[in-house]
Formats: sequence, structure tokens, C-alpha cells
Amino acid sequence: MANPRVGIVMGSDSDLPVMKDTTEVLEQLGIEYEVVISSAHRVPQKTARYASSAEERGLEVIIAAAGGAAHLAGVIAAETVLPVIGVPIKTSTLGGLDSLYSIVQMPRGIPVATMAINGAKNAGIFAAQIVGINDAAVRKRVKQFKLEMAKGVEQKDEKLQELGVKAYLAEMKK
Amino acid sequence: MANPRVGIVMGSDSDLPVMKDTTEVLEQLGIEYEVVISSAHRVPQKTARYASSAEERGLEVIIAAAGGAAHLAGVIAAETVLPVIGVPIKTSTLGGLDSLYSIVQMPRGIPVATMAINGAKNAGIFAAQIVGINDAAVRKRVKQFKLEMAKGVEQKDEKLQELGVKAYLAEMKK
Amino acid sequence: MANPRVGIVMGSDSDLPVMKDTTEVLEQLGIEYEVVISSAHRVPQKTARYASSAEERGLEVIIAAAGGAAHLAGVIAAETVLPVIGVPIKTSTLGGLDSLYSIVQMPRGIPVATMAINGAKNAGIFAAQIVGINDAAVRKRVKQFKLEMAKGVEQKDEKLQELGVKAYLAEMKK
Amino acid sequence: MANPRVGIVMGSDSDLPVMKDTTEVLEQLGIEYEVVISSAHRVPQKTARYASSAEERGLEVIIAAAGGAAHLAGVIAAETVLPVIGVPIKTSTLGGLDSLYSIVQMPRGIPVATMAINGAKNAGIFAAQIVGINDAAVRKRVKQFKLEMAKGVEQKDEKLQELGVKAYLAEMKK
Amino acid sequence: MANPRVGIVMGSDSDLPVMKDTTEVLEQLGIEYEVVISSAHRVPQKTARYASSAEERGLEVIIAAAGGAAHLAGVIAAETVLPVIGVPIKTSTLGGLDSLYSIVQMPRGIPVATMAINGAKNAGIFAAQIVGINDAAVRKRVKQFKLEMAKGVEQKDEKLQELGVKAYLAEMKK
Amino acid sequence: MANPRVGIVMGSDSDLPVMKDTTEVLEQLGIEYEVVISSAHRVPQKTARYASSAEERGLEVIIAAAGGAAHLAGVIAAETVLPVIGVPIKTSTLGGLDSLYSIVQMPRGIPVATMAINGAKNAGIFAAQIVGINDAAVRKRVKQFKLEMAKGVEQKDEKLQELGVKAYLAEMKK
Amino acid sequence: MANPRVGIVMGSDSDLPVMKDTTEVLEQLGIEYEVVISSAHRVPQKTARYASSAEERGLEVIIAAAGGAAHLAGVIAAETVLPVIGVPIKTSTLGGLDSLYSIVQMPRGIPVATMAINGAKNAGIFAAQIVGINDAAVRKRVKQFKLEMAKGVEQKDEKLQELGVKAYLAEMKK
Amino acid sequence: MANPRVGIVMGSDSDLPVMKDTTEVLEQLGIEYEVVISSAHRVPQKTARYASSAEERGLEVIIAAAGGAAHLAGVIAAETVLPVIGVPIKTSTLGGLDSLYSIVQMPRGIPVATMAINGAKNAGIFAAQIVGINDAAVRKRVKQFKLEMAKGVEQKDEKLQELGVKAYLAEMKK
Repeated sequence: MANPRVGIVMGSDSDLPVMKDTTEVLEQLGIEYEVVISSAHRVPQKTARYASSAEERGLEVIIAAAGGAAHLAGVIAAETVLPVIGVPIKTSTLGGLDSLYSIVQMPRGIPVATMAINGAKNAGIFAAQIVGINDAAVRKRVKQFKLEMAKGVEQKDEKLQELGVKAYLAEMKK
Repeated sequence: MANPRVGIVMGSDSDLPVMKDTTEVLEQLGIEYEVVISSAHRVPQKTARYASSAEERGLEVIIAAAGGAAHLAGVIAAETVLPVIGVPIKTSTLGGLDSLYSIVQMPRGIPVATMAINGAKNAGIFAAQIVGINDAAVRKRVKQFKLEMAKGVEQKDEKLQELGVKAYLAEMKK
Repeated sequence: MANPRVGIVMGSDSDLPVMKDTTEVLEQLGIEYEVVISSAHRVPQKTARYASSAEERGLEVIIAAAGGAAHLAGVIAAETVLPVIGVPIKTSTLGGLDSLYSIVQMPRGIPVATMAINGAKNAGIFAAQIVGINDAAVRKRVKQFKLEMAKGVEQKDEKLQELGVKAYLAEMKK
Repeated sequence: MANPRVGIVMGSDSDLPVMKDTTEVLEQLGIEYEVVISSAHRVPQKTARYASSAEERGLEVIIAAAGGAAHLAGVIAAETVLPVIGVPIKTSTLGGLDSLYSIVQMPRGIPVATMAINGAKNAGIFAAQIVGINDAAVRKRVKQFKLEMAKGVEQKDEKLQELGVKAYLAEMKK
Repeated sequence: MANPRVGIVMGSDSDLPVMKDTTEVLEQLGIEYEVVISSAHRVPQKTARYASSAEERGLEVIIAAAGGAAHLAGVIAAETVLPVIGVPIKTSTLGGLDSLYSIVQMPRGIPVATMAINGAKNAGIFAAQIVGINDAAVRKRVKQFKLEMAKGVEQKDEKLQELGVKAYLAEMKK
Repeated sequence: MANPRVGIVMGSDSDLPVMKDTTEVLEQLGIEYEVVISSAHRVPQKTARYASSAEERGLEVIIAAAGGAAHLAGVIAAETVLPVIGVPIKTSTLGGLDSLYSIVQMPRGIPVATMAINGAKNAGIFAAQIVGINDAAVRKRVKQFKLEMAKGVEQKDEKLQELGVKAYLAEMKK
Repeated sequence: MANPRVGIVMGSDSDLPVMKDTTEVLEQLGIEYEVVISSAHRVPQKTARYASSAEERGLEVIIAAAGGAAHLAGVIAAETVLPVIGVPIKTSTLGGLDSLYSIVQMPRGIPVATMAINGAKNAGIFAAQIVGINDAAVRKRVKQFKLEMAKGVEQKDEKLQELGVKAYLAEMKK
Repeated sequence: MANPRVGIVMGSDSDLPVMKDTTEVLEQLGIEYEVVISSAHRVPQKTARYASSAEERGLEVIIAAAGGAAHLAGVIAAETVLPVIGVPIKTSTLGGLDSLYSIVQMPRGIPVATMAINGAKNAGIFAAQIVGINDAAVRKRVKQFKLEMAKGVEQKDEKLQELGVKAYLAEMKK
């Protein structure tokens, strides 16, 4: 098996149902990845080691997901020069606004590329866009992916024009 | 000089004008402290070392101040069993709400005792309250401090009763 | 039975399902506690008496939980020099942001150590960290607690590496 | 001098520049008042005594102003059956949203009638509306006050029609 | 039947399940009331007439409840010198923050006494506190009401002391 | 069939259950419309073409609905001089506040007329009000619509007066 | 002079410095307008009369600006079938979020087309877009306006390409 | 001169004083860039062309800055498979929260890597981290940059230890 190019880290396995979308889109785009549970607060040294060794292990991008006072992405970004993508996880109290602020408002010098709250799928696509800069095959697959997405919208629109609003809605409920 | 009992850490010297209030109240309450600049993101290992060695160096409480995606207090709390007090620093864009969320919304297992935005003085008082549990002299000084604060309010009220609103306001402007 | 060292106060018994986490973690860490229902607004004098007598009754830390215009922690902090920890309870309208602001934004002079919204477990851990400063047995138990928490993360990660994402998720749903 | 019918309490003399508007409108409406500085947190017993004795001292309404974790109005409302009006004071970090939430989100049983952030003038008018229910002279003055306010708007509009936008703006800048 | 002293107005019958709490507490406190559905936007003239005739019809206080861009209380306050109490109704999108801002942030000159989001019960109690200023029987009932509320808290606390946390929680779930 | 005068565009068919309200009210008001699925991000060129050709195709008003980083209405407004109405769709994380900000805060020069979050029905009514300026039949139907709405409120109020609160509520639950 | 086609209403002359932008853009686009000061709360009947007579007086669009609990636009929309555009005015405490919510979150049946906070210029442009549907001359001027705006951006870009960042910034500061 | 590898686009030249930080850090890190003013709303076709031709023109990363309803980054991301970094510009009314939401909350399929509000410097660093994946010289310069940043923190800390708080603050004010 090829070496992983993208590392996906999450602070808790409770983030996995969201982050599975990242793994699926990376598979769809043909990019090797690994998934790791490693909390910034509960196992800080494991997390630091993971981040500081990522480059020499051949990773190209790291995706970090966390909720609440979501320090994981920032803590990883502190230990590597690889690009780090952060996914703020929705919280039950503040809807994920706490996660978003904790990830996006990084101080000067240590950026984290922040996705939408629960934006797991986009994290995978963005990683692929980065990888695709120097990998023509990946770039081609990203283009194909976007074309299919566009085609999906057009097909839905065609169906709507054909069925009309009421019949379309009736079918959606099935 | 006695060993410091309270460590004050801030991510940037730009936090110092706010955090000077912590140092002043600790002096007033007769508690030894040290002040350190150590960013969670720019010097993560120094920060981790500071936190993990704090206990054996004799510190009893750590106060951490940071703004924006304020990870400092959480990162320190991950590396020590000493109580960690967090001070969210006001930011020019979100008023410090980003700092507050990043500090207070810690996940289960790793608490940070959060003060008000820019609540530097209260961080010092709270540290003294902790220290005072087992140090009768400190506790006495905290009581004295509260008494004087109460007296200050009463004196202002007396002056207001004496002068009336208009004259009091005129004097405030002087 | 030993005297309680931590007092847990809540404004309403509707906070009890959340605050039970505090009691459980204090039991796990071997710290005596008491639990009291006493509203700042409905029984203000009982609350004031509870707070002002806490020190002489041997309490070392008070934990106060309330929701909405959550004045309980501040009102207690006004009447004692013991450290007061506040737990903002989630509300159905504002998600607990009202509780958070009402607890954390205390004025200069009267700090309340604020936990995350519904952060009941962390309130107990933080109380233990305070108590542990001068109680080696408690401190040791807190360290043990953190080690086990770390071990839990590592075990989950090992399991994830073993099972892969899909099988892990399938097992989570069981 | 007649007994005060309205008590104005503020947590700090820093609120006085805002709350002077309350005193001015009460004077304009011919209602006796008193002004007191009494913090819920710094002098809790003085505050409780003030509130619990207000009724027998002949007060009819209490206005309480505070900022941040603004507990003053709620703490007073806990100790009296007189109607309590709360004025949330603007804060430099959160614009007064913290004050607003701390005052308005009172639990069932203990209402506080909340005004706009820095709504000191309206607190006075509302107190007058309450007093006016059973005092025909006050009610008449409130009506007169509203008529003059309406006339003021109409005069501005007439002037605008006369001058046009540009000349009106030029005059405003003078 | 005696004349109503309190008028309860709501913009839509969808507010009635919340506002029934107002009617219940007013009944408990022995205060006559009337309930009216009258939208500020859908039947503006009916609403204006209701407000402008309220005084001569003998009402002493008006309670207005609305959600979203909640103009009802302000529109009523514009047409009467009676005290107007506003109840912001929770909304499904913004949790009632839109309702709260629309009611509490009234401009200078036209106050609305704002309750908590969905604070229907407190609106009734506050109306009773106003009425009670000049009605000894009502005031006495409000005092009795507060005493019983306090007793309720004390009984819950006693039961908690007796049963302990676990048994109390078990009974709550029944 | 007559040419459509109003174009309804939505970024995804998941917005259709909300936007069906727009279609229903337009039918009720006798205004021809068309419904199109066309995402600003997934099919940008289709969207641009739709907007830039709208005028010559005879549309008079465009309604655009989107959620999250809701660019659709702004992107359409950039390509036409027809009035564009934006409907922010509620989101599961931020309640639709993200959608609202993305639609309403348009820069100088390119307005979007923003409705309430999920305000699909009002978008249709507002389009009818625009169309009605120069179409007496439509204007008359809008007036009739408002009259019936008013009558509906009055009927509910009459029923409430007749039944009383309890019976009315009992009937609502049926 | 031709009859005004657009009515601009504001609750207070303090809104005029913002709303002057509306008047300027309407002049630029050759559309007759009138400007009126008329508060929803201070002169409710004048406001209602203005709105209910607008149609017969020949107005086609009404623009209403207000801040805080900004009811003006909604109150006007309640009394007319003309399209009403709302401009939320920035407030010193909540930045205009209160104004925005009070204007945009209108209940079903009574839409207000909301612009950005302080979006006075866009209110004028949007009114022109509405008027332009049936007035080819106005529509042409709106197109011209958009073309010039586009040209302005292109000229700035050309200048930037010519000067480079530093020189461009230096010139901006002049 | 070498071809630009990073394209910096901003919606208005008013964003240039903030975005100059991006240009400076890219120069420091030795990465060729270009700067373009191109609004998503005022010159949508120019913007679309810029984005859709970026890949063949040899750009590797695009940075887009905008404020308010900030659609620029999303509109560009819709037209290219290159990674797009978004910089939300601070706004005078909502502090940039509107810009942040408009950029970060992108729908599934079209990611934008969002930086902090006004995080112009980090956008440049993040672009360099991306470029550095396959360019050893750039990666080395990023590492050097981080080392110097770390050294800067350490030097400040040393100076603070040497001078103490008061003298350090005195020097900061110079």
C-alpha cells in the first residue's frame, strides 16, 4: 500500500461520524490517507510527536478536527510546516461557533485553513486541491469530481422542470 | 527572594499592559510570582516544558493569558495538574469573544478556570484565594482586600449622598 | 464520615442531572463534598448564609451552577474568600450563552472561575486540582485520572488503527 | 422635602454618567428619587438591606444599573416585592450584551423589567408610568412629556421640509 | 365580574401556549385580566385602538408578547402612558434573540419593560408587583407567592439532603 | 401559458421544501413564475447566464434562496438590473445567521432585498408588491390578501373571546 | 416639480447623515423623492397616515430607516401594499445587529426588503431597480450606473498594476 | 521576472492596507505573486475569467480578500481547482463576523480555506506552506521564518526577565 499523503487527526472518536466524509472523498479522489485519534489536551505529547514527524513520514497535508475549545489544529500547526486544515465540529451548546473561533482566529505566524462547521467533506477536497498542484492525476480527478457535481445540479434542475414543484417534493419525501 | 508560587504566562508581550494588573494585585496580596512570555504556537516546546516542570519548580497556580484562538491556557493545562486560570484578551475584531470561547469551552477532563475578558486583576485575586486555602496570612490579606473594596464603595456612596449627582459628576470629570 | 471539602450549590433541582457529573468525579477522586439546592433569587438569605459560613464549616472550594441570568456563583463569591467555580447551565433559548456571560463577566474584585457550558465534570476536576495543591493523595489521584484519560485515547486510537474507520463506526453504533 | 418614591441603585460610580439621565427625567416628571451606590458583589449586605427595607421606607419602584455580569437588579428583586427596573450598562468588550443577558434572563418567579442597553432615560420614564397609575398628576406630566416629544419630531420634520436635506445637515453640524 | 386590570396582547395565537403562564399566575395572584390577539402588522389599527383606549377602559398594565421582528409591545407603548411589559417569544431560527432585541432596544422616550425570552410567568408577576404598589391585597398575595416559592426550594433541598443525589435523580425521572 | 414574471432560483433542491411557500403565495396572487435549481458555486456559469438573460426573457423580479455562505442572491444581482430578493435558509449549525449575513451585508452598488430567515412566503408577497406597482390586478389581489390576513386575526380573536384561553388551547391541540 | 416616486422616512434626524446617501443616489439616477422624519413610536399616527396615504399620493416605493428596536419599516409595511425597503442603522452598543433583526425578521404576510446595516446607498439603488421595471429611462440609468461602477474597479486595478502595491498605498494616504 | 505563483485578489482597494501584509510575507518567503482588484459583484465576469484562467497561467494558489457579504473567495473557488484561501476583512458594523461567515460556511463541494479576520499575513504564510510541499527552497524559508518567530518570542521573554514588568512596559511605550 502506498504511503499516506494526508493525515486526518481528531480529538475524540465522537468526531468520527462527521469525519468519515473526509475519508470517503479522499478515497473517491484516489488519495492515500491515515486517520488518528489524538487529543491536544489528553495526549499532548503524542499529538506533538505526530505533528513534528509528519513531514519526514511523507505526509503532505494534515486535517485536524475538534469541537469546543478546539486547539488541535493550532497545536499541530505549531509543530510542522505542512499545511494544516481545520474542521470545527458542531457543539450542542453553541452550534460550533466556539469550535470555529478556536480554529480560525489563529495568531499571526501560524495559519490554520479553516473549513465550515462540520465541513469534513470540503477538508478532503481542499487537501486534494493542494495535492493536485503537483500531481496531474489527482488534479484531473478533482476536475472530474467538480464536473459530476455540476452535472448533478443540472440533472436535478431538469427533473424539476419536468415534474414541477409538487411532484418533485412528493418524490423527495419517498 | 522567595520562590514564585504563581506563574503568569502570556502568548505575546502585547498582552502585558493588560496583565500588569495581575502582577500588581499579587504584589498587594503578598504572593510571589513570575512572568513569562511563551506562545503556545510559536514556541510550543518551551510552553510544554514550562507547564510540565511547574509543579516540581514549586508553582501552585498558573495564570495564562491569550487572545484570538487562545490555546495557551488549554495547552498548559494539558501538561500539569496544577490549577490553570485563563484570561481571555480583548481582540479588535470580535471584542474578545473568540478568546473567551477558546479558553472556557475546554473538553471534559482538562479544565481551565476562565476569568472575564481582560479580567487580569481577578486572575490574581483568584490565585490568591486558591493559595489562601492553606496559607492563613494570604487568606487574611484577601479578606482585608475585600473589606477595603467594600469600604471604597461605601465612601463613594457617602460622598454621593453629600454632594448630590451633579456635583459628584463634576468632580469625577476633574 | 469526613467533613465535606467541596460544596456544590445549584439554583434549581433541574440542574441536578447535569451536576451529577461533578459528584461522580469528586467521588472518583476521593474528595468529600456536599450538594445543596439554594437559589440566589428565591432564597437569597439562605444562599448568603451558606456562602458566608462555608469557610468556618471547613469547605475549601464552592462550585455553583445556574442557568439564564445566572447570579448564583457571583452572589456566593461576594460572601466568601473561598475560591468559587461557576458552571453555566445550557438554556433552551440561548444555548447557555446567557448563563456563560452572567457567570464569567464578573467585575473587578470578585472572581468566579468559569467552566464550559454544562462543564460539570471539569468543575469537579478543577476543585480537585485546587485541593491537590496541599494534599498529596488527591494530587496523586488527579495524576492517575489524567493518565487513565490519556490511556483511553490511546486505546481508542489503537482500536481505530486495527479496525479501520468503517468497522470502528459500525461498532460505535452498537 | 418629600420622601423619595423611586430608588436608583448602581454598582459603581462609573455608571453615574449614564444614570444621570434617569435623574434628569424624574426631575422633569416631578418624581422624588434617591441615588445610591451599592454593589451586589462588593457590599452584598448593604445591597440586601437596601432592597429589603425599600418597601417600608416608602419607595414604590427601584431602578438598578450594572454592567458585565450584572447581578444587581436580580439581587435586589430577590429581596423586595416592589417592581425592579434594570438598566444594562454598555461594556467595552461585549457592547453590553453581557449586561443585557445578565439582567433580562431572570428565572421564573423573580422578574426584572429590563430597559435597552444604557437605557437610563427610559428607566425613569417607565418608573413614572408605574407611579402614574395611581397618581393623576404624574400621569398628566407623562402625557405632556410624550406630547412634547411628538411635537419635537414634528418640528424637526417641518424644518427638514423647509430647508431640504443639505441645508438641514449643514445646520446639524454647527 | 370585575373589570380587567391587566391586558395581555399577543400577535398570533401561536403565542398562546407560552402566554397561558401569564394568565395562570395572574389568576393565582387574584388579578383580573383580558387576553387579546391583535397583530401590530396584520391589524395595526385594531392594535392602535386597543392601546389608545386602554387607559379609559380601566386597564393599569399591558403585557405584549411577540416573536421575530417583535414590534407589538413598542407599537402599543407608543399609544398609551400605561406601563407596557414585553415578552420576547422564542423563535426557531435565532432562539428568540431577534424577539429580544426588537423589544428591549426601544429608543429614548418610549420604554418597554422586557422580560426573559418566553418569560410569560414573570410578566404576570411583574404586573402584579406594579398593581400591588397601591393594592395591599395584591401586594400581600405577591409576598405569599414569593414565600411559597422559597419554601418550595427549601423542601427540595431537604429532600435532596435526605435522599442523596442518586435517589433524588431516580425520583425525578419517575 | 403566460410568460413567467418572477424567477425563483435556489442553490440546492434541499431548499425546495422551504421555497414551496413562495410558489404557493405567487399562485394565490396570480403571478406567473418559474423555479430553477442553479448553484452559484457548482454551476456558476449557468447561474450567471440565468441572471444576465433574465431581463430579456421578460422576468421582472428574481428571488434567490441559499444557506450557509449564501452567495447566490449576490451573484445574481451582479449580473442583472432586475430587483433581486434574497431568502436566507436556516442552517443546522448557526440557525441561518450565516445565510442572513451572507445575503444582507452586500457592498455598496449591488443591493439584495433580504427577507427573514426561511422567509419564503414573504419573498413571494414582496415580489407581488413590486409587480403590483404597475399592475392594478395584482395590486388588488395583494390588498385582498392583506384583508383576509387581517380577517383571520380578527376571527381568531373573536374565537378566543368566546372560548376563553383554556378551551381555545384545547382546540388548538386537536 | 414632478411628484415624488420614492418616500424616504426616518425615525430621527440623527439618521440623516447616513440616509443622505439614499438621496444622492436617487438624484444621480433621476428619481424624484421626498424625505420625512416620522417616528413609529413618538408620532405613530403621523407615521400610519403617511404610510396609508402613500399609494394614493403616487409614491411607488417607501424606504424606512431606523436603529435599535427599529419598528418603522414594519409599521409602514403594515399600512400599505407598496414595497417597503428597510435600512438598519448602526447602533453604538450592538453595531446595528438589533436594528437588523428588528427589520429583517418580519412575520409571514408583511415583508420588508432589508438592506445591509447603514446600507443607505443600496436602498436608493434598489428603489431605482424597482422603478426601472416599468420605466425604461430609469432602467437605462441604473445600467449606466453599474457600468461606471465596473469601470471604476477596472481603473483602480489598472492603476494598481501600473504603480504596484507600495506606490498605490502611498497615493491612497494622500 | 518569474511568473507569479500566488494570485492575490481583493474586492476593493480599501482592502489593500490590510492585504499589504500578504505581499510582504510572500516577498520575505521568496514567492512570486500578483495583486488584482476584481469585485465579485461589480465586475463578475472579470473575476470569473481571472479564476478560470488562473491554472493555465501557472498560478498555484489564489488568495481572495473581501468584507461584508464576502462572496469573492467562493466565486473564485467555483471557477478553479486551485486551492483558494479566503481572508475575511473586518467591517465597521459587525467586526468582520459577516465576512467570516460569508467565506467560511461554504457548501459541500467548493472549499475555501479561511484565515482569521484580517489574517492577511497568515494567508501568505499558508500559501507558502502549500507551495513548499514541492519546493524545497520555499519550505526551507518557511522553516527559517518559523525559527525566527520563535527566536523573537524567546528574546522578548529574556528581555522581560532582565528588565521586569515595569521597565519592560516603560520601554514598550517609547
